[in-house]
Amino acid sequence: MPQDDLHDQPLGAVPSATTSEALNVLGSDGLAPPLGDMSAEEFRHYGRSVVDYIANYFERVERFSVLAKVEPGALIARLPTEPPETGEPMEAIIADVDRLIVPALTHWSHPGFFAYFATSTSAPGIFGEMLSAAFDAKALLWRAAPATQELEEVTLAWLRQMIGLPEAFSGIIYDTASVSILHAIAAAREGLNLRVREDGMSGRPDLPLLRVYASEQAHSSVEKGVITLGLGQRSLRKIPTDAEFRMDPAALARAVAEDRAAGHLPFCVVATVGTTSTASIDPVPAIADICGRERLWLHVDAAYAGSAAVVPELRHILDGSERADSLVLNPHKWLMTPFDLSVLYTRRMEVLHRAFSLVPEYLRTLDQEQEAVRNHSEYGIQLGRRFRALRFWMVLRYFGRDGLAARIREHCRLARLFASWVESTPGWELLAPVPLSLVCFRACPPHDGEAADERAARLDRLNEQIMHAVNASGEAFLSHTKLHDRFTLRLAVGNIRTTEAHVARVWQLLRDACDRLAPADGA
Amino acid sequence: MPQDDLHDQPLGAVPSATTSEALNVLGSDGLAPPLGDMSAEEFRHYGRSVVDYIANYFERVERFSVLAKVEPGALIARLPTEPPETGEPMEAIIADVDRLIVPALTHWSHPGFFAYFATSTSAPGIFGEMLSAAFDAKALLWRAAPATQELEEVTLAWLRQMIGLPEAFSGIIYDTASVSILHAIAAAREGLNLRVREDGMSGRPDLPLLRVYASEQAHSSVEKGVITLGLGQRSLRKIPTDAEFRMDPAALARAVAEDRAAGHLPFCVVATVGTTSTASIDPVPAIADICGRERLWLHVDAAYAGSAAVVPELRHILDGSERADSLVLNPHKWLMTPFDLSVLYTRRMEVLHRAFSLVPEYLRTLDQEQEAVRNHSEYGIQLGRRFRALRFWMVLRYFGRDGLAARIREHCRLARLFASWVESTPGWELLAPVPLSLVCFRACPPHDGEAADERAARLDRLNEQIMHAVNASGEAFLSHTKLHDRFTLRLAVGNIRTTEAHVARVWQLLRDACDRLAPADGA
Repeated sequence: MPQDDLHDQPLGAVPSATTSEALNVLGSDGLAPPLGDMSAEEFRHYGRSVVDYIANYFERVERFSVLAKVEPGALIARLPTEPPETGEPMEAIIADVDRLIVPALTHWSHPGFFAYFATSTSAPGIFGEMLSAAFDAKALLWRAAPATQELEEVTLAWLRQMIGLPEAFSGIIYDTASVSILHAIAAAREGLNLRVREDGMSGRPDLPLLRVYASEQAHSSVEKGVITLGLGQRSLRKIPTDAEFRMDPAALARAVAEDRAAGHLPFCVVATVGTTSTASIDPVPAIADICGRERLWLHVDAAYAGSAAVVPELRHILDGSERADSLVLNPHKWLMTPFDLSVLYTRRMEVLHRAFSLVPEYLRTLDQEQEAVRNHSEYGIQLGRRFRALRFWMVLRYFGRDGLAARIREHCRLARLFASWVESTPGWELLAPVPLSLVCFRACPPHDGEAADERAARLDRLNEQIMHAVNASGEAFLSHTKLHDRFTLRLAVGNIRTTEAHVARVWQLLRDACDRLAPADGA
Repeated sequence: MPQDDLHDQPLGAVPSATTSEALNVLGSDGLAPPLGDMSAEEFRHYGRSVVDYIANYFERVERFSVLAKVEPGALIARLPTEPPETGEPMEAIIADVDRLIVPALTHWSHPGFFAYFATSTSAPGIFGEMLSAAFDAKALLWRAAPATQELEEVTLAWLRQMIGLPEAFSGIIYDTASVSILHAIAAAREGLNLRVREDGMSGRPDLPLLRVYASEQAHSSVEKGVITLGLGQRSLRKIPTDAEFRMDPAALARAVAEDRAAGHLPFCVVATVGTTSTASIDPVPAIADICGRERLWLHVDAAYAGSAAVVPELRHILDGSERADSLVLNPHKWLMTPFDLSVLYTRRMEVLHRAFSLVPEYLRTLDQEQEAVRNHSEYGIQLGRRFRALRFWMVLRYFGRDGLAARIREHCRLARLFASWVESTPGWELLAPVPLSLVCFRACPPHDGEAADERAARLDRLNEQIMHAVNASGEAFLSHTKLHDRFTLRLAVGNIRTTEAHVARVWQLLRDACDRLAPADGA
């Protein structure tokens, strides 16, 4: 499949408004008026052009290289170093999106995107973003955006039921999982009742070292969270994992006991349901037992995998999570919702409120009835909040629970299918179990008369080369991790457009690359 | 101007795809297919409907009540408590946006929106959001989204030149000013070289109390920042302001000296250019002198007012800011850019990097040439980052520097004009200077034989009633603050659709309300 040169074949030629019959009456030249915004007629004209452009993009996305084929700095070099002094016609700007921006994109909407966690935007989500950008509501407080606040409550109650969390959990939307987890740990800190909010942690000789626990496989956002919160990297104790990359609860219990003996103060455990490297699932019930006994805040990071609980036969992945204090799930990862939309559920909303509530005079409402309503900005760092719930509501309604479950189920089936090919092919191996839609694997063609360390180094090099070769094809994009110090290829299925044909194609590309790079002995 | 009942007059009837000639061939029923996303043909169809809907919305936005006329919980009550089991047709969803969501909106895009800081979305910004939602790029690192990273650098270099900051500043886009300021204070903390990142602040008897300074008029996000960062409310020392609500530099110098004498560790000062209550401008040059002498990180909060520096004759508002360590400016406030897009500039990007860099194995790139490229996710809490620069680039190009300056200049003219009416009308008074587009004022009709405290209480009540009356009209929306303990009305001009007629109308509404609520003596 050759890649288009987008210069020669622009996705959508945008007619100038002056040539459009409907717009002639306006005498428009595609330029901004002296004051105000574009007229409604022009908005219709150019808006439709953008819609057509996006439709063309989705129709033709497979003609593009998934991974951008640009050198660092190439886009910067093609753009003026000085700002535009006067306005430019809208058609010139849209043409430049096609000419300059699209070639410098890595295409997350390409069905051959298998890197990191593959994710998916969707039509209803895009429509929701269009409307949000037009309404441009800033949910500083209820009265500033009643629909934003209330639709957030409704959609999060729906999602809670869809994944089988008890009613005791209520939710809030943040932008990213990194921000959600930071809020969870901050709430856990507030739950200590050590006056950290009021008095802080500096100049406090009375404060012991506060400890957070997470597995070696936990996401880096846990570490970034403790850094930001002033707890420091020292406060994070990483707990070993078993052969299948799951936290060892016995090791957790020992670590907590050791820390208490040393005079430290354990207060929070982050369990992961669906780790980033392998999608492994920590034994949450056993971890919840320890947290209950030790009175530790249990946060469950289900940012990727939590969505799978929408599928009835996969709901068990959240077993034990009903005992958590908080849980994060990212609809922008696996619920067909455009980035960014991360959900934090907690059974202890009042602690989150205590940690973050702050209402200055210029936001104090005078309407007494509003005390009945939750102001989400009192539950987080951000005062202004986007109308994220709108597109989530449109996605949930358009696909329905069944439709979302069908897509997630299919992604898991494709991952298992790919894993079965890896398993049944000599010279290839799985490097981790495949509980959901992520496959960790590598090529391991034999080579005679090789010491163990030579073999390890050879396979690391080979798999890295294979990955680069596949990514350079433009037809697929894989990323990697390290497992037991071995370079590991990751195939993550998660895009709404990915079908069995795409998974078969990347498997072909992988084998071809391996055959080229490591010809069979005697070849 | 009567308000429409949106039920009777929906903004845009969305024809079912089945009735559309172009779509008949697809046999579509507006429902999601069994797998995958909506077809490109359907995307075109419904996308155009949404564009038309938005165009209608902008054309008719003045028929709506600016402030939503709904009771708390009304939207929740109109929505199902259980999630949709199966998908629903797109036309039903769009119809419900019109029937349920729009009536529960406070209309930030209404030209009569004068509350908080009035802000503005714009057509090029909406088009940028549409494209961003389709591309759905997550800038985890350069290769995952080269255009995102590079367009961010280009647009922020443009904006830097537009506001006259020196080249030593480089920028990064976050979501909100609250997040930007948190990062600025975190960088300042890291700049202390006290191993806060590594060792944290708990269990550190060696750490003195760390101190941050901001004026009494500073935004609440400063306080929320120190709370989040574990510095605590105690770490924030609020400095008194002068009669015009500007930080008193002498008081700052005294506070720093006192704190040093007490064994505390001053490290950061937040100066505000355009405070939230009155748009007052702290004397940044004098504050920068103190910060230089005392080696304190100077952060300038120009979230609202910084945009005004695009206007040549207003550039002076950033005098002294060229000596700051960091500065925040929100294009989503006054640069016609849909929410959310906040910019942090800093001369000490390497300190910000030291505070937040963390690259896990699964994100380590193997391409050596990429070391030349900045990975923005290493400069902040969020790992995934939206393609915010796209819509900002489209806004900057469509309006140009001249076009943005013209709009901001006009908003300031309208504010001054309104202020002149207040000043020249007996029974009304200004309560603060009007440096930009915000007017603080109140009604103060005389009343014979009244003690000072009676008068104060009466005027507070009256102005609160006037505000509610004007907001209840549906034609305008004002918010309030307290200045010198007086209930103060705020008129903030910032929407792209606001014209002199709208400002004249709110002035009429205010006077009418006052006349009704406080008839002249003898009436």
